[in-house]
Parts: sequence; C-alpha cells; structure tokens
Amino acid sequence: MRDWELRVDEVPDPAPGPGQVLTRVVACGICGSDLHLVTHGAESHRLRQELTAGQPVDPLAPVPLDPSLDVVMGHEFCCEVLALGEGVTNLSEGDVVVSMPAAFDATGVHALGFSNRYPGGYAERMVLNELLCLPVPAGLPPELAALTEPLAVGVHAVAKSRIVAGDAALVVGCGPVGLACIADLRTRGMGPIVAADLSPARRSLAERMGADVVVDPRETPAIEAWRRIDGSRPLVVFEAVGVPGMIDSVMRMAPRDARIVVVGVCMQADRLYPLVGIGKELSIQFVLAYTPQEFADALRSIAEGTVDLAPWITGTVDIAGVPQAFLDLGSPDEHAKIMVAAR
Amino acid sequence: MRDWELRVDEVPDPAPGPGQVLTRVVACGICGSDLHLVTHGAESHRLRQELTAGQPVDPLAPVPLDPSLDVVMGHEFCCEVLALGEGVTNLSEGDVVVSMPAAFDATGVHALGFSNRYPGGYAERMVLNELLCLPVPAGLPPELAALTEPLAVGVHAVAKSRIVAGDAALVVGCGPVGLACIADLRTRGMGPIVAADLSPARRSLAERMGADVVVDPRETPAIEAWRRIDGSRPLVVFEAVGVPGMIDSVMRMAPRDARIVVVGVCMQADRLYPLVGIGKELSIQFVLAYTPQEFADALRSIAEGTVDLAPWITGTVDIAGVPQAFLDLGSPDEHAKIMVAAR
Repeated sequence: MRDWELRVDEVPDPAPGPGQVLTRVVACGICGSDLHLVTHGAESHRLRQELTAGQPVDPLAPVPLDPSLDVVMGHEFCCEVLALGEGVTNLSEGDVVVSMPAAFDATGVHALGFSNRYPGGYAERMVLNELLCLPVPAGLPPELAALTEPLAVGVHAVAKSRIVAGDAALVVGCGPVGLACIADLRTRGMGPIVAADLSPARRSLAERMGADVVVDPRETPAIEAWRRIDGSRPLVVFEAVGVPGMIDSVMRMAPRDARIVVVGVCMQADRLYPLVGIGKELSIQFVLAYTPQEFADALRSIAEGTVDLAPWITGTVDIAGVPQAFLDLGSPDEHAKIMVAAR
Repeated sequence: MRDWELRVDEVPDPAPGPGQVLTRVVACGICGSDLHLVTHGAESHRLRQELTAGQPVDPLAPVPLDPSLDVVMGHEFCCEVLALGEGVTNLSEGDVVVSMPAAFDATGVHALGFSNRYPGGYAERMVLNELLCLPVPAGLPPELAALTEPLAVGVHAVAKSRIVAGDAALVVGCGPVGLACIADLRTRGMGPIVAADLSPARRSLAERMGADVVVDPRETPAIEAWRRIDGSRPLVVFEAVGVPGMIDSVMRMAPRDARIVVVGVCMQADRLYPLVGIGKELSIQFVLAYTPQEFADALRSIAEGTVDLAPWITGTVDIAGVPQAFLDLGSPDEHAKIMVAAR
C-alpha cells in the first residue's frame, strides 16, 4: 500500500539483523483492519496525529507509518525460516513459526503489517525477531497456524471481559473477531452464547464455533434472542462490528449492569447517550490485541484441536490476488477469512 | 416545577398510607441534577421516551413523571416525623430521619423529588416509607444528615470503580459529586488523589475533603498534575462534570488501561472516538445512585465524623428562596451546596 492505495509490486528483500531471521511467508490471513486501513486510513491517520499531538511519547510505541512510503500489510502470518541473523540460537532453517506482529531493532519497535521498514505477510519474505517466534507444532497446517493472531484477539477480549461461569454472552457481529470471541468463550465453557450477524454464512460459522443461539438481527433482535433462552444472568456483550452507531445500539439494547466489550474497531467519531449508560450502569471495555501469553495460548488451542478454525478459511489467493480478495471481503455473505498463500 | 419551570406555590399536604409516615422537612440540599432537570428536562424527557420505547417494562422502575403536572423536587432531605400511618411500628413522632429518595405504595415505586404523586424535599411536608427511613443519630445536625444522599453517590461511584490500594485517583470536577468521591476515596485510604476544577472555592473544598493535589485545569492539565506526583500507578478517573465533550476529553487525557467512572450526568448526546479507547484499552463505567447499604454507610461516615461535610454548605435559603438559589448555583465560584431549611 502507498498513499492509501493497494499496489502489487516488487520491493527489496528485507535483511535480518542481529537476533532476527529471514523467513518465507507460507500463509497470511487478510484482516478486516487491513480493509479498514485502505478505506479509512487517511481519516484515521489524521485523527491519530491530532489525538497524539502534545501527548508524551511512549518509547515502546510502534514507529508511526508514513503513508506516502510503501507499507506491506499482513499481520496474521505463518512463516518458514530461511536464514539466521547474527546471534540466533533457538531457531533453525526450515523451522515453521508464528510471531506476534512486531519487530524490533535499534530504531525501535515496528508493527509488522503497518511499517515502512519491515514488510508484513502479504510479501514473499519477512524478517522476524527470534524472541517473538513460536514454533508451529509438527503436523499443524500453516494456514491454521496463521489464524493464531485473530484467535488471540478473541482470547484477549474474553479475558478482559472478566466473564465468569454463570454469566451469559452476546456476540454482535460474526466476522473473524466475533467468531474468535465465540470460539474462546466455548473453550472456557462459558454460556449460553447468543450471536447475531446479517450473513447466513457467518451465522453458520458462529454455530460451528459453539454459539448456542444464532440470529439474523433483522428477524430477531439479538437481545430478544438472549431473553428467550436466558434473560436473567449477568450479560457480557461483545461488540464485534466496529462501525459508527454500534456502541450506541448495543448500549440501548443492553440490560441493566451489562458489560460491553468493544472489540470491533470503529475508525470514525461515534455518538452515544451517556444517560443510557447511566440509567443502566453499563460498563464499556475497549480492547486491543493480546498479551504474549494469550498469543501462545491461541496457538496451543489451535494445535491441540480445542478449537477447529478450518471452516473460517473461505478462500485462498496468491499475492497478486490480494486486491481482488479485498474487494471480495466486502461481501460477508461469501467470506470470513481469505488466506494469502505462497505458490 | 410544572412545564419545566420553577414555581413556588401551595400544594395539598400529602397523607401517609399504610407503612408510611408524614414528616416535616427540616433540611434539603439542592442538587445539580435538579438544575439540569429545569434546564435540560424537556430534552432529556423526550430522549428517555425515545430510548425506552419498545423496551420491556421494569415493574420496579419509578413511575415516570408527567411534566405538565406539579413536581416538587428535592431528594437530599432530612425530616422530622409528625404522624404515623397505619401499621408503622419502628418510628415515633419526633424522630429525625433520612431516607433513600423513593416511596412505594400499591401504585408502584415513586422517585421522591421526581414524582407527581409524592412531594420532594423543597416542600414543608413529605411522606416517607418506614422501611426506607434511617434514624439520624442524636446530635447530628439535620443539614449534615441531609448530605447523606450526595455522599452516597460518591460512596457508590468509588465502589463501582473497583479501585484498590496501590491505584491512583483523578477527580475531574469538584462539585458535590466530585467532592463526595474525594471524601470517600480518602475514607478508604486511597491515594494519591488528584483533583481539578475551574473554581477556586471548589478547589479549596477538594483540598479539605482530602485531595493531595488540586489544580486549575486552565493552568495545569489534571493529567499533568498526576504525572508530576505519580504517573505510574493504575489510574481511576472520576468524570464528575457531566457536560458534552467531557468523556472524550477524559479519554484523550487518560493513560493506557485507565478506568473511567462517569459519575457526572450529561443529559445530551455525546461524541467520542472509539479509536482512543481502543488504543489505550480504556474502560468506562457509568454509575447511578447507590445501594441501601451504601446510603446507610454514608450516613454513618457523616455521623461518626469520618468525613466533615460542613464546608460543603455554602448557603441556606427557605422555600421561597429556591428559585434564586437555582440561579446562584450557576456560579460555582461562590457555591457548592445550598441547603433549603425550614424556618
């Protein structure tokens, strides 16, 4: 991407520095936030600059991207190690690994997939830091290992929700983020889980991930579906849509004392009514990403078969096919996750 | 109040039903939410009707007020029992009591101060339910006992914040709600407590309630004051202003992982940037009122002298003086709490 437009182009191979490895990308999922970045990137870039002006600089915050320079996106990757940089002792050529999407060197921390310095997973080659690499257990297909990152988003959201046995869960939106929340809720034995999405294909995936009841909100409001099967437990609502108006909508539907977890990423200004939150004593927890432990836990869940994410993968393209895949992902009736795979 | 306008008028004395007592109002504080009601009541009344349309009816929710009929406001009262209704056994004539501002009978629950059926504390006479009355300990001045209700708001907000030893607190806005939060934080031994208000008089009160550092946010941003004396502990921010834009402002200033407690009541639509909350994983807890236990705890704190709220009372008027007091409270430089007292 350059100037907020997708391009398929040749870029120089990256070179691994000390503690880093050069890898070949085997599989990389396309994330909704990448679509968001192309569509709303310029707007949110300006917003970020405005919001961070005058704020103290966090020395560990990722180096901001310059949108006028090349950015190779892709942060849900699984790679094979091709060559070792200086001082790498725990990895060998041929190892298959996943990594949290960050690279660091003397210039700072760089968000893989959102960096001008390091290419992300829609490239043929990536440089990763040994310290962040997790070996993919033998026999786990790389395209499933590449789902570690989106699953970790759900693992983190569920952890931050402080949901406990005896609570109920409502997941609004069954794209990969909502599906990851459902999968992790089921892994933890939480329930009942009610889910809602406009797309029949995604509703079907929500059922396969373990939702107890899945509705089309145009036919049955999500909260009504929860009332029918429960209606009395403390309720945690996962807002996994991320467009303006969704937080307001969830606040209006939520019962008293509901905890709302905002895991969808709305890139624009949004409007809500504090009176609604006050009258019902709602809480809103915004969440982002995951911890290293949660990332490792997500990989283990996939490897051990605790969750079966294979149905998420609704398409596979090569690098040249990424722009078309971005267009296709705009039709949620047909796709959940499209994987970019090396040929 | 009728048609959202203040009036001083004669209304019939209320009659106590079974389980109720007729009382004489000895003192009643004027609350900012009463000023809000006059100023923004029509707007928020429409909003409430819109927001509750089609929602399931809570049989224990207070009976809604009809703004075209008389409403005697005032919900921070201390009363003397004049006469006992049928079946009252635990109260006697002459008892001085406070009560959570609710009355109930066969017609439902009525919010005292926001009801067409029961007069609130800006009246000479009130009817209270025996079951909600707490005796005021001997020797406690009634005007201090009348501060039980606003202190309970702070007790509840601090409880809902889940603040623990080792956290820091930032209180934005030092009207009675912010002061109540500071007083309760100090009672619980929490700190450091940083507070901010535009008014010198309120800043002085914040110091007397136990804030460690109090700033004029025009000179020193509140968050900067916190950074100077701490900057590292988990931070709980109490938003106690309640005007549009304050939640956004607090979200922008808050450090990573801050918990924001919205205790100020913004009656209009409000705008925020989800990206700000997501990037810092903020949480927002909206709070309302208090539990019966918190109400009783607030009375006990005042009676035992754990908190000294006497400096809150910056003026006293009789019933005829209420409209002027509403105007005077618009000047926060001069007033915190004006008490309506029987002559």
